[in-house]
Amino acid sequence: MAHAAQELVRKLGRLSRVTDEPGKLTRTFLSPAMKRANALVAGWMKDAGLKVRVDSVGNLIGCYEAANPKSKTLLLGSHLDTVRDAGKFDGPLGVLLPIVALADLKRRGVKLPFDVEVLGFSEEEGVRFASAYLGSKGYCGKLTAKDLAMIDADGVSVSEAIERWNGLTPGRSSKRVGVNALHLKAAHKRGDLLGYVEVHIEQGPVLEAKKLAVGVVSAIAGQSRFKLTWTGQAGHAGMTPMALRRDALAGAAEFVSGVEAIARRTPGLVATVGALTVSPGAANVIPGEVVHTLDVRHADDRRRRQALMAIGRLATQIANRRELERRWQRTQENGAVTCSPALTAQLARSMKAIQGKSVSLVSGAGHDGVVMSALCPVAMLFVRCRGGLSHHPDEYASPKDLGVALAVMTDFLERLAAEQGLTPLPAAAGPVFVPGSRRGRNRGK
Amino acid sequence: MAHAAQELVRKLGRLSRVTDEPGKLTRTFLSPAMKRANALVAGWMKDAGLKVRVDSVGNLIGCYEAANPKSKTLLLGSHLDTVRDAGKFDGPLGVLLPIVALADLKRRGVKLPFDVEVLGFSEEEGVRFASAYLGSKGYCGKLTAKDLAMIDADGVSVSEAIERWNGLTPGRSSKRVGVNALHLKAAHKRGDLLGYVEVHIEQGPVLEAKKLAVGVVSAIAGQSRFKLTWTGQAGHAGMTPMALRRDALAGAAEFVSGVEAIARRTPGLVATVGALTVSPGAANVIPGEVVHTLDVRHADDRRRRQALMAIGRLATQIANRRELERRWQRTQENGAVTCSPALTAQLARSMKAIQGKSVSLVSGAGHDGVVMSALCPVAMLFVRCRGGLSHHPDEYASPKDLGVALAVMTDFLERLAAEQGLTPLPAAAGPVFVPGSRRGRNRGK
Repeated sequence: MAHAAQELVRKLGRLSRVTDEPGKLTRTFLSPAMKRANALVAGWMKDAGLKVRVDSVGNLIGCYEAANPKSKTLLLGSHLDTVRDAGKFDGPLGVLLPIVALADLKRRGVKLPFDVEVLGFSEEEGVRFASAYLGSKGYCGKLTAKDLAMIDADGVSVSEAIERWNGLTPGRSSKRVGVNALHLKAAHKRGDLLGYVEVHIEQGPVLEAKKLAVGVVSAIAGQSRFKLTWTGQAGHAGMTPMALRRDALAGAAEFVSGVEAIARRTPGLVATVGALTVSPGAANVIPGEVVHTLDVRHADDRRRRQALMAIGRLATQIANRRELERRWQRTQENGAVTCSPALTAQLARSMKAIQGKSVSLVSGAGHDGVVMSALCPVAMLFVRCRGGLSHHPDEYASPKDLGVALAVMTDFLERLAAEQGLTPLPAAAGPVFVPGSRRGRNRGK
Repeated sequence: MAHAAQELVRKLGRLSRVTDEPGKLTRTFLSPAMKRANALVAGWMKDAGLKVRVDSVGNLIGCYEAANPKSKTLLLGSHLDTVRDAGKFDGPLGVLLPIVALADLKRRGVKLPFDVEVLGFSEEEGVRFASAYLGSKGYCGKLTAKDLAMIDADGVSVSEAIERWNGLTPGRSSKRVGVNALHLKAAHKRGDLLGYVEVHIEQGPVLEAKKLAVGVVSAIAGQSRFKLTWTGQAGHAGMTPMALRRDALAGAAEFVSGVEAIARRTPGLVATVGALTVSPGAANVIPGEVVHTLDVRHADDRRRRQALMAIGRLATQIANRRELERRWQRTQENGAVTCSPALTAQLARSMKAIQGKSVSLVSGAGHDGVVMSALCPVAMLFVRCRGGLSHHPDEYASPKDLGVALAVMTDFLERLAAEQGLTPLPAAAGPVFVPGSRRGRNRGK
């Protein structure tokens, strides 16, 4: 796999230079850079023997066709958009790795008993419209009227952006006409799909701590996000005795500590206050108001809801004792997604075969699989990334780890082919694939 | 005093309309509004029989002269500058109240056995140059080369501003020539002064809680101000287990709570975290860095230093346990100022006589008295303000409370006159002032 891993590294580097912002990597939904990225990746897809199309919401789709045209389809993919000032792995890895793996199969003349569609979703990060998963939602026929009406910083709506991307002139009186004409339906029927498998950098420190290159995802955590506002009484920092204060920051600080304690004693729970602002925000004025976020995730929705109830009681208790007003606003709510036991077990077997050890993680981050799970079974393979860092130019996965991930993907495709009860068709000069002979091969290289 | 209090309310209202910013009250050091304010108040001083001058740093000085030209001088005053979008009491009250009180003495034909200088300092709030007390520092001959070199938002230095105010053309090669020519020396020798007494709104809730119109200040608290930086490790809020986090906000929150606990268990201590910012500051990112202020005050410098040591140990403990880096930067340090026991006792006697009860407070806020204490004994009288609110257009002291403060000031002047062993000289038609007859008079009206 060393050669293929080098090829993957080269492609990741090349794609990372396709950007909307000179000097840094930023590529957003239906932007000029997205068009160039699709063209570049489409070329690589064609080289790997894939049939390429772009759907009406900008998703790049390449099909490695089975021998039998009536075969089912396996989906492999991730997203091609990025956050602002991004790293080169988050998203593109899950698109380019399958292309490189399939190119290798093609080179070896291996045909699979199912179609493989490689998906490069046009939107996952939620940068342009502050709403995530527009690409996979479009692919699944799940874009709602509310989604289409969202506007970006320039006042352009999702439907207008889609119309322009497809060369349509957005109608002024009825913005939806053009979009409606595009028939944003699901790309497949549920029964036609074997599943969706996504390779992604971990974006966390667990694999690094466990000294493993890859891990399989058992579930994508459910997530609740809130905006909290604590209102007390601003006052002079020198002239207001401690006993007469209603300090909004003192209340919020107690809450932050309490939330951390609840998360620490609840296995698998993560809870984060990531943004916090203080008003008036002067050194000599007691804070009168604090606004902050709260993000709570767990793989088990029931455990998450239990934790939220404990957190709610904590807030009430603090507010009452300190005579603060506190307001909650729920800004996001996603249920947990359980990965397909069958696909996950298959991935785990490949992982065990390649790196010797199998490890299962919960994905605390949302991924395209959250949306795709409505259409078909989903599975995910995480790749170790340095320091758990992501959404940053220094984001890094080593070529060696990428090689392991490539080997796992190839092994997985072969196992799945065997499981389908069909022997892949060897090319004349290619290696013969025989189910049951796998364990003897050296997959680690 | 009802008539005099009404007159004081009228004057406060009139002066509050002299502003640099239309629609709100903002009057800063040596601004156009400051020039108009000085002219307005100078007129009122003259009406009250005061001899008026403006010193080279813009302080307005009006002298109610004693019968004997060799008499000592009592200073009464406060500042005429304001914060941005200010209320009408903070500062002007301490200038206008003595003028109204002296106008009443003049009307009654009372002469005092000492000069009374009413001071309207040109700068106390630190708005224009982000440095406080420029007016009283100038009056005391305490402006340093460092003070004079400070520049405002437009790049104008203190010395240039002073030169322009005095009609001098600032020298380009040597900015200090003009200022030096002004001889910024102390206005008085220490031995020539009886003391400095300032009337000010409380800016806190204690008098309101005690249901008293006025209180005397025993000391102006010493104050330490810091900027603290906590550095941990930013990370994905979903992908980083609680045990692997180095959350800068979780550390800062624990610190805020700990500082509050130390302040609550230390009588007289106030400690405030008033400003706090979180980086990167996104809902789904673990805070990597938190920067916040810390303001600690106590009337007893030793107690303040003890508290700071406890706070320092707390920070070290939190930083070590959480593997955070924490940096301290001291941004301000003022020792406590003890008010003159003699003047304060005299004020307390007047207060007891007028409102029935005497109460002593620590001023947690800095005032011109901090600087004036280097020149002469100082004392302060606080006036109750609604909700403890100041630095806000809704700042309010009731006419009734202003009447009490006026009566206390008049009583104080008469007691001081008696203490000086001299009977004030009654005018031909005015009331005769006889020491010892005070208790029988109705001072409450």
